[in-house]
Amino acid sequence: MTDPSEAVALLRDALGERVDVTLESRRRARADKSGHAASGTPLAVVHAASIADVQETLRIATATRTPVVTRGAGTGLAGGANAGGGEIALSVRAMDRILEIRPDDLLAVVEPGIINADLNAVLAAQGLWWAPDPASRAISTVGGNIATGAGGLLCAKYGVVRDAVLGVDLVLADGRLLHLGHRTVKGVTGLDLTSLVIGSEGTIGVIVGATLKLRRLVPGEVCTIAATFPGVRAAAEASAAVTASGGQPAIMELMDAASLAAVHALLALDAPTPGAAQLTIQTDGPAAAAEADTIGAILEATGGTVAVSHDRAEGERLLTIRRSMHPAMETLGTTLIEDVSVPRSALPAMFDEIARIERDHGVVIPTVAHAGDGNLHPNFVFDAQPDPDGIVEVPDHVWAAADDLFRAALRLGGTLTGEHGVGVLKRRWLADELGDDQWELQRRIMRQFDPLGILNPGKVFGD
Amino acid sequence: MTDPSEAVALLRDALGERVDVTLESRRRARADKSGHAASGTPLAVVHAASIADVQETLRIATATRTPVVTRGAGTGLAGGANAGGGEIALSVRAMDRILEIRPDDLLAVVEPGIINADLNAVLAAQGLWWAPDPASRAISTVGGNIATGAGGLLCAKYGVVRDAVLGVDLVLADGRLLHLGHRTVKGVTGLDLTSLVIGSEGTIGVIVGATLKLRRLVPGEVCTIAATFPGVRAAAEASAAVTASGGQPAIMELMDAASLAAVHALLALDAPTPGAAQLTIQTDGPAAAAEADTIGAILEATGGTVAVSHDRAEGERLLTIRRSMHPAMETLGTTLIEDVSVPRSALPAMFDEIARIERDHGVVIPTVAHAGDGNLHPNFVFDAQPDPDGIVEVPDHVWAAADDLFRAALRLGGTLTGEHGVGVLKRRWLADELGDDQWELQRRIMRQFDPLGILNPGKVFGD
Repeated sequence: MTDPSEAVALLRDALGERVDVTLESRRRARADKSGHAASGTPLAVVHAASIADVQETLRIATATRTPVVTRGAGTGLAGGANAGGGEIALSVRAMDRILEIRPDDLLAVVEPGIINADLNAVLAAQGLWWAPDPASRAISTVGGNIATGAGGLLCAKYGVVRDAVLGVDLVLADGRLLHLGHRTVKGVTGLDLTSLVIGSEGTIGVIVGATLKLRRLVPGEVCTIAATFPGVRAAAEASAAVTASGGQPAIMELMDAASLAAVHALLALDAPTPGAAQLTIQTDGPAAAAEADTIGAILEATGGTVAVSHDRAEGERLLTIRRSMHPAMETLGTTLIEDVSVPRSALPAMFDEIARIERDHGVVIPTVAHAGDGNLHPNFVFDAQPDPDGIVEVPDHVWAAADDLFRAALRLGGTLTGEHGVGVLKRRWLADELGDDQWELQRRIMRQFDPLGILNPGKVFGD
Repeated sequence: MTDPSEAVALLRDALGERVDVTLESRRRARADKSGHAASGTPLAVVHAASIADVQETLRIATATRTPVVTRGAGTGLAGGANAGGGEIALSVRAMDRILEIRPDDLLAVVEPGIINADLNAVLAAQGLWWAPDPASRAISTVGGNIATGAGGLLCAKYGVVRDAVLGVDLVLADGRLLHLGHRTVKGVTGLDLTSLVIGSEGTIGVIVGATLKLRRLVPGEVCTIAATFPGVRAAAEASAAVTASGGQPAIMELMDAASLAAVHALLALDAPTPGAAQLTIQTDGPAAAAEADTIGAILEATGGTVAVSHDRAEGERLLTIRRSMHPAMETLGTTLIEDVSVPRSALPAMFDEIARIERDHGVVIPTVAHAGDGNLHPNFVFDAQPDPDGIVEVPDHVWAAADDLFRAALRLGGTLTGEHGVGVLKRRWLADELGDDQWELQRRIMRQFDPLGILNPGKVFGD
């Protein structure tokens, strides 16, 4: 690397006041919503306003061998966009325009910095919808959703980000711009590099535009089912029974007793029955009511206490309990939010493993699950003293418990991360899942995009 | 390359009678259903019965630097699996077992050689369905569907192969076996190499297993709409109007006048009105009848003569006309079947271009389209004398017309190939669509899987 100050001087010459060297901005770029932060503070934050700005930043980064960490809204949960010492934080948050909406072709072309919910508000006015709905959709960007391969609540019925992106415009490490993918429903010309970008977490290029596959808003009513079970295993078995029956809810969320108790306390609701777990299920579309009845009967047959609502507002109120999980956890202490995913039939077994890990490691792990798709978010709660930047280190005994969790998920045919990505927090387990041969191959592919290794170094694959 | 006979001797030592050197088998491995054949005849056809057979074949191929062309049922339409002089044809057709069906997790694990329709017959007995439905589904393999990234008739509503594969087991050029992807609905651990394999046409590895994402069979009735229009442009405008209205048919097929006339002649039906084009549309699911009524009204408003049937058998009869396109074309002469795809709103403009190309080049191009997703199959009909193997060369004036067609599709925001792949027949246009930078990057990525260039050399990227 050349003198870091040279890179900043070149950036300021080229991009003027879009290069932000205030300590406050640089400190903010160290962290995301995981609570983890990079060591050191980045050289500068570049607030790119155009593709040309991104290209110029990368040309200077290549010329000076300076690492670049691309950021959107900084809502990641794996540390993937945290910028540290000697690095340029490249923010594309200000590139937030909608360039095109085509209801006739069911596609939209957008810049990466637009907030998911802001895009969907505009689309909804035209009866359209971009389906990926991470729980962060009110604060996370479309570019960040693509970079992490985000999921959400509606995935089992309406798909993940991978299913909803037709093409991506990508700036390479050397500043060249590539147009990947197509505007057509079908297209198999050459290798599918669009899919390679989805979930690549800033390691192979900077997403500067995306062609999104849209859906029509779903007509008909929405029915919401709340079902209470004596314990989490019973709730998990019931959710697996719903999937096995052929029912296809739009949303099927599971909360264990500790999660439920924490949220009820936060929202000042009556305390739930001790030990009780809850499923919150929504059906939609023309057959919503009939599907809700069928699912309700399955839940009752598996021992649930069931209430069905056909009122959209009441349904939203019930889902608010699930959506309050993150703030409720913050009232308990510091949390490490995990993201394993298992085949849906293995949900009961995975909850058994979580109970075992709580006992074996003496930790508390309130857990919610997107039970419709088998993705669990175990929250490891611990006490820790934040550093002056408000950042906490995860203690070793929590990592040991998390390690046990990851290995249990892999044994059950699952995966390390369903939707949050690898970032820095899960990179040490990556080769356990991929195997050494695939890990090495992925790293070599990454290097074809970024021969100098300046794009988000240390993330995903480690150093 | 070492002495070719050495590779064959090593293969026979290792694999015995699974190495087939009969002239008949070797000749058959030169060609697919495109009518195009490789020059020369492959050294041998290896009929692999297991993953170990594939690995052994590739180890010998690497040791002797012998090219390997992987084949399934040989139903490709772009020459991608044609094996020529000095090459080993590796058939995985005999690897056709279903290893696992999990209704509770909506997945199946299969070997690559199983025929799409055979798999779906087994799945249907359990109320399940693998959605990709290329028109060749009765004769093409699942492995071949994945290798080409196949589409089909139902794609706009139910997705393409890319949307229906969770994981792939891949043998690399050096014989190592990789397990790519997962068994879970969500999963973002590392780069998405599963998607990279889909549509890679045998250039980055041999698919020896696949974990497929299943659907439940769709309940409810199927309604079929046949609508006749005075000309192909009116039919294309009507199909675009259906998509723009928010209607979502399961199938929407368009046949132009020349296609319709040829099929009617083949099936000994009354000749259609001269110049008339037809849309055949199916709706399914709980709202099938209501959707058919809505779509029927749109078609009448755009000038169509509409008939709706609620009878499944009558629906199948109407679709038989569309499915007879391929044999009907064979009665007209030799054909080059193309596969461009355009955004759905551009279908009328693309049919204008086809009419212009027919005039400009003095060729006849009967065309059918998967109008629901914008994928067209123009059939360039010509007279040619087959060689002793029954293979015909495409004349230069037909290639000139096809070149004009490809460029028109790209101008309209479309792509060279929607579902057939690049193979050998479209490789000279690949860089026109990808751009030189992306073409070069794709080629470098391919080389990470196959450093010696022994996997399907000359296909997709050329030499």
